[in-house]
Amino acid sequence: MSEARSAAVEYAREHREATLDLLKEFVRIPSVSLEPGHRHDVRIAADWLAERLRALKHDRVEVFPTGGHPVVYGELMTAGPSAPTVLIYGHYDVQPAAPLDAWKTDPFELSARGSNLHGRGVSDMKGQVVACLAAVEAAISTGSLPVNIKFLIEGEEELGSTHFGDFLTAHKDMLSGDLILVTDVGMLGPDSPTVFYGLRGMYMGKLRVSGPATDLHSGEYGGVVYNPIHALSKLIAGLHEDGRVALPGFYDRVRPITPEEHSELASLPLDEKDYLEQSGVTQLWGESDYIPVERAGARPALDVIQFRAGSPKSAIPAEAEALITARLVPDQIPDEVHAQLLCYLEANTPPEVLSEIVEWTGFRASITDRDTPGIQALSWAFETVWGKKPVFYRSGGSIAAVGFMREILGIDSVLTGFSLPDDHVHGANEKMHRPTWERGTDALVHFLFNLRL
Amino acid sequence: MSEARSAAVEYAREHREATLDLLKEFVRIPSVSLEPGHRHDVRIAADWLAERLRALKHDRVEVFPTGGHPVVYGELMTAGPSAPTVLIYGHYDVQPAAPLDAWKTDPFELSARGSNLHGRGVSDMKGQVVACLAAVEAAISTGSLPVNIKFLIEGEEELGSTHFGDFLTAHKDMLSGDLILVTDVGMLGPDSPTVFYGLRGMYMGKLRVSGPATDLHSGEYGGVVYNPIHALSKLIAGLHEDGRVALPGFYDRVRPITPEEHSELASLPLDEKDYLEQSGVTQLWGESDYIPVERAGARPALDVIQFRAGSPKSAIPAEAEALITARLVPDQIPDEVHAQLLCYLEANTPPEVLSEIVEWTGFRASITDRDTPGIQALSWAFETVWGKKPVFYRSGGSIAAVGFMREILGIDSVLTGFSLPDDHVHGANEKMHRPTWERGTDALVHFLFNLRL
Repeated sequence: MSEARSAAVEYAREHREATLDLLKEFVRIPSVSLEPGHRHDVRIAADWLAERLRALKHDRVEVFPTGGHPVVYGELMTAGPSAPTVLIYGHYDVQPAAPLDAWKTDPFELSARGSNLHGRGVSDMKGQVVACLAAVEAAISTGSLPVNIKFLIEGEEELGSTHFGDFLTAHKDMLSGDLILVTDVGMLGPDSPTVFYGLRGMYMGKLRVSGPATDLHSGEYGGVVYNPIHALSKLIAGLHEDGRVALPGFYDRVRPITPEEHSELASLPLDEKDYLEQSGVTQLWGESDYIPVERAGARPALDVIQFRAGSPKSAIPAEAEALITARLVPDQIPDEVHAQLLCYLEANTPPEVLSEIVEWTGFRASITDRDTPGIQALSWAFETVWGKKPVFYRSGGSIAAVGFMREILGIDSVLTGFSLPDDHVHGANEKMHRPTWERGTDALVHFLFNLRL
Repeated sequence: MSEARSAAVEYAREHREATLDLLKEFVRIPSVSLEPGHRHDVRIAADWLAERLRALKHDRVEVFPTGGHPVVYGELMTAGPSAPTVLIYGHYDVQPAAPLDAWKTDPFELSARGSNLHGRGVSDMKGQVVACLAAVEAAISTGSLPVNIKFLIEGEEELGSTHFGDFLTAHKDMLSGDLILVTDVGMLGPDSPTVFYGLRGMYMGKLRVSGPATDLHSGEYGGVVYNPIHALSKLIAGLHEDGRVALPGFYDRVRPITPEEHSELASLPLDEKDYLEQSGVTQLWGESDYIPVERAGARPALDVIQFRAGSPKSAIPAEAEALITARLVPDQIPDEVHAQLLCYLEANTPPEVLSEIVEWTGFRASITDRDTPGIQALSWAFETVWGKKPVFYRSGGSIAAVGFMREILGIDSVLTGFSLPDDHVHGANEKMHRPTWERGTDALVHFLFNLRL
């Protein structure tokens, strides 16, 4: 190990408590992007981050306004033009903490219990952002940051990165670089450091079925007027058949899983039993000719996440609404999925009602080559810290920002993170496993040095 | 026309404004039985009513507590033991006014616009209760009430008359009488005074489908865990086929419509065009071998009135719930419909989820003989005021109280009312047609005198 690298790793280890204090401060700011009442707190979190970057002697630090919450940007180009430039993506916004009474401690006060640190956003992803800051600090403070750094931390990830695409387009030149580090994913278990080489894309549409002009008394009109709830149920029921999505054309562009990838996915420490245990169901579901880990990451899925209609009043409601989401894989295209859905609706909507997609959005899946220097650097870093090779995994999740950065900046992301499957991300009592977080921080230091090898 | 009758009708006409003022006061009390925040207002409405009965010199007035909202009872037995005793059923509770912004004026301030009076509960059924009070007052005040009266006005009709059955059982002796006047139904149009000889019964069950132990991230589990929203949609979609209820056995006990009744129903001033206009749909639905008016009254119907599941967070929800209601006709039995539903669920619930009816309730349909003195008295009253015979109609609606009174007290109800199909009962901008209401009040005066003929 080079002397510079050793010194940086040593620095990171010696400053564990200071790093933890930083996380405490960060968690204390309730930067809930979804709630208008927290608008000011979101701004405070952005300013707090900018202050941290200034303390790390960045050449340039700016809080860029957007149509929504600001993007924090910091540039540290001391490694010079021959060194690689790493963009470090992150987000400083968090999910709402509600329902508060489900929390054992104040969600906005970091609370240590056993090996875990509890608090809203600790795992998603304030802990990961602080780990990145700590790794960069370790290298800077020991005088040897081997790469150029551009921090790029948004405040709207939990809203679907609403204005992030516009921001990237407006600052494309500023945001040049060789690769992007994204620590917003996670790992399969504390002993399974994970490199993600794929993320699913997303289609989300709000489907509305309209029937009568107003809610109608179900006594007077039951049996005469078709109920939008029945129509919407029928439309949703028809979206699947035998565990597969039944939209004509939906699978046409799905990139087949190669025999090599199948073997590799089959060898992951994540089998049917794990899925059963983690979900609490008695029986899994889906495409029977694929193993669960394939279905959750390498195959597309369609889920209605909300169905909202009617009331306890005895009425046939005027309308019924559903939020339909599809997790897309390469090479599916959101626009095409939208067109398939429209086509399905046209063919299957009962003649007594109207159906329409009143709003929709989407982005493509991403999959990256595993032989890139970035993925190799991360892989070696994990091997050094954990003493074992990381698992390579395609996540079933979706990160809009990764899609935008690929599309607009033309830069691939290296995807990882130190959150664990039982961290209750988005839920009550969100936590982060402290030993894993600390090892992750060390791995990030190694990652920075590995990039220069 | 007898002198006493003329004087009473004259009195009712001369006191239109005072009657309207009474309605204003009544509407002003937001007696929303469904909302715990209005509990006190419901009580105020009960006391207000009791005060009105005392002002009408009732021999006995009591506000009886129940397990929920109280029942107001008033007795006026001055006509003596040889005269018939009429129970006048009503309810003083109203539906919630939400959403408030859909109202053009304050729902709890009576507002006159053209020939209509707008306000929550004006048609369902504070206006009808006030009409009954006004008719009785007219006869009392002119010294000639020809029958004995027992007012019986509950505060939980909009909750399904939750505690009314218990109340009737506890006070069976007190509640003896010859017939019950129920003005909670309505009429087919301002020129079609209507006598209802049938009401549909009701089955209501809450169906819950349970999947994973907690809400699951739809990225990580989409394609692996079966979504309760999909399962519930499928179950609901299977409840109908070709406009008919698909529960095996559902129609077995349905009493056939006789050719005579078919002719009569077909001649009602209520055809397909009326249903289309009133509902605002472009195409009706249901059993194609029955005319709409049969489907809405003499045939059973099944409607899901609420489907509630999920949230905009990207999650597969742990459970999904639906409120299923069935409007029953003679001789269907709620217990049997419940059993049919359970049987259907057992046969059709996907193996990856659980389904259960977590609570249910129901009562049978009622149909009465049209040659009873009560129905004849009402029919003549309408003929006197409107100058035409009323229409005889089976309502598609359901009134639990009518079923309970038949079952527990053994007394049949005479069903009518002065609300019109476009009154937006239960909806925003509920209204009542003032001229129809006033003619209805006069008809009630005649009804009281006709009973003594």
